[in-house]
Amino acid sequence: MDEVKIYAPGTVANVGCGFDIMGFALENPGDILVIRKKEETGITIINSTPDCPKLPLDPEKNVSGRAVRFMLEHLHSTQGFEIEFKQKVMPGSGIGSSAASSAGAVYGANLLLGEPLTRKELVQFAMEGERLASGSAHADNVAPALMGGFVLIRSYQPLDIIELSYPEELYYAVIHPQIEVRTEDARKICPTAIPLRDAITQWANTAGLVAGLAAKDYELIGRSLQDVVIEPVRSILIPAFAEVKAAALAAGCLGCSISGSGPSIFTLNKDIETAKRVAEAMKEEFAKLGIDSHTHVGKINKEGVRVLK
Amino acid sequence: MDEVKIYAPGTVANVGCGFDIMGFALENPGDILVIRKKEETGITIINSTPDCPKLPLDPEKNVSGRAVRFMLEHLHSTQGFEIEFKQKVMPGSGIGSSAASSAGAVYGANLLLGEPLTRKELVQFAMEGERLASGSAHADNVAPALMGGFVLIRSYQPLDIIELSYPEELYYAVIHPQIEVRTEDARKICPTAIPLRDAITQWANTAGLVAGLAAKDYELIGRSLQDVVIEPVRSILIPAFAEVKAAALAAGCLGCSISGSGPSIFTLNKDIETAKRVAEAMKEEFAKLGIDSHTHVGKINKEGVRVLK
Repeated sequence: MDEVKIYAPGTVANVGCGFDIMGFALENPGDILVIRKKEETGITIINSTPDCPKLPLDPEKNVSGRAVRFMLEHLHSTQGFEIEFKQKVMPGSGIGSSAASSAGAVYGANLLLGEPLTRKELVQFAMEGERLASGSAHADNVAPALMGGFVLIRSYQPLDIIELSYPEELYYAVIHPQIEVRTEDARKICPTAIPLRDAITQWANTAGLVAGLAAKDYELIGRSLQDVVIEPVRSILIPAFAEVKAAALAAGCLGCSISGSGPSIFTLNKDIETAKRVAEAMKEEFAKLGIDSHTHVGKINKEGVRVLK
Repeated sequence: MDEVKIYAPGTVANVGCGFDIMGFALENPGDILVIRKKEETGITIINSTPDCPKLPLDPEKNVSGRAVRFMLEHLHSTQGFEIEFKQKVMPGSGIGSSAASSAGAVYGANLLLGEPLTRKELVQFAMEGERLASGSAHADNVAPALMGGFVLIRSYQPLDIIELSYPEELYYAVIHPQIEVRTEDARKICPTAIPLRDAITQWANTAGLVAGLAAKDYELIGRSLQDVVIEPVRSILIPAFAEVKAAALAAGCLGCSISGSGPSIFTLNKDIETAKRVAEAMKEEFAKLGIDSHTHVGKINKEGVRVLK
């Protein structure tokens, strides 16, 4: 096999109370990449996306090139690859655009090399793409993109990734308002120290969320989806966040918070009809401010990155 | 029924990373109380314990009297009760002595009144005993004492108590060194603000612990039993804490931390033989310093407070 076409899903990181430690995979949107073996060594990036003209073509400046290079070094491989982007999750959306590219590229290259590495082992290399994109090698987008489902990053040193048990019927509605929030600003606005009282509330909710997911207790999932640490500061960067969240809750979602560092907002829902209704309610709220938005609705993606036939 | 004899178990609160939000019930030690209906209104406390002479006999200064009084007021009942203590978890041990008394008393009085309240509903009244004992109406001892098992207090306002799923085979070894740590000192030493970085580590471990308990993944339970926030400061109050913990881990426990506000130290273990070995190893370590200690080994108590025939 010399060529493979890959679908790499977008992801929601943080998941409310789980700041920096949790993420889940989406059915859509996602990246589509074609990975091809090259005769010569080195990585070539090709951008064939219809609507994402700004992808860096220098493989050391493209997250997918960087991630694959780290993987090849680990494997002591001199194999060259061409990475052609056919479709991109919109960069800066807060739904794991760079993670989808890194995850898709290492997954595809690993397949073409005869699968020397597992999905879990690929996470550390995809994280190098994240380091390039945001300055920190976080895993809360790349791990769910590679492994699918709902993922907990319990520890970085050593890397300890836990696949959480969650209800089969669990649906997201994500809205991406067409405004720009720079990841750098979203990072800078985070406090460096927090009151112990707030920290306790947060870990009570993280524990509640994991317990609710495991027990398939939708009410508990909803009650636990509260972020008292990061959402209060980051939401300032998203116009009408409070109104959009209120509309989503009124429309019946279990819980609602910022996706990654924003500006996208995610909700979790019991069924697809509710998720659709919630997406519509959030869209209307942004429309009131004259802000255009894209919505994405679906089931949590159990599989993660996959081959497209 | 005019009289009932109650066993109310000791409890381990905090459980490492779960500071202020988690607790589990022990098989032993526990309080034994006899609750009797009185002809006249009011609460009488009788102390028949062989080794705990200092129990307050004024019902407003005794946690059990206070807890029952709040319950009776809620029920608009003028029924009087006599509460006789036959056995006491040693006060100041860090294994829920006051909680056992409060939980046992409200459970017994509620039974004699024809069970108008559920175990869960009794928690809020037993919490008034805790308010008397420590100045704060916490629930992480009284909830597991009343409900048994492994309990999460997700929220106080409103009170949200979650019974966590955990492995049937899970054993504690608890050691109570014969030294005094005043709860007030243990509270005072806690920081009021913590680095965000540490808070994230803590909620990653809380999430990992709940996931490990639910999945019956002993290794994950062990890896998650890490408290980077409170144990580093409170352990200063317990001589040789580091050595005792190291000995417990070397003897094969899954994880080890301070029970409640100390000085007791708890461990979780896969089987009873390991728990016994771990208890012995910890005891030897304290003995090296000339510190006498009591050990308690058993299975996590699924039932909680119960009637003794």
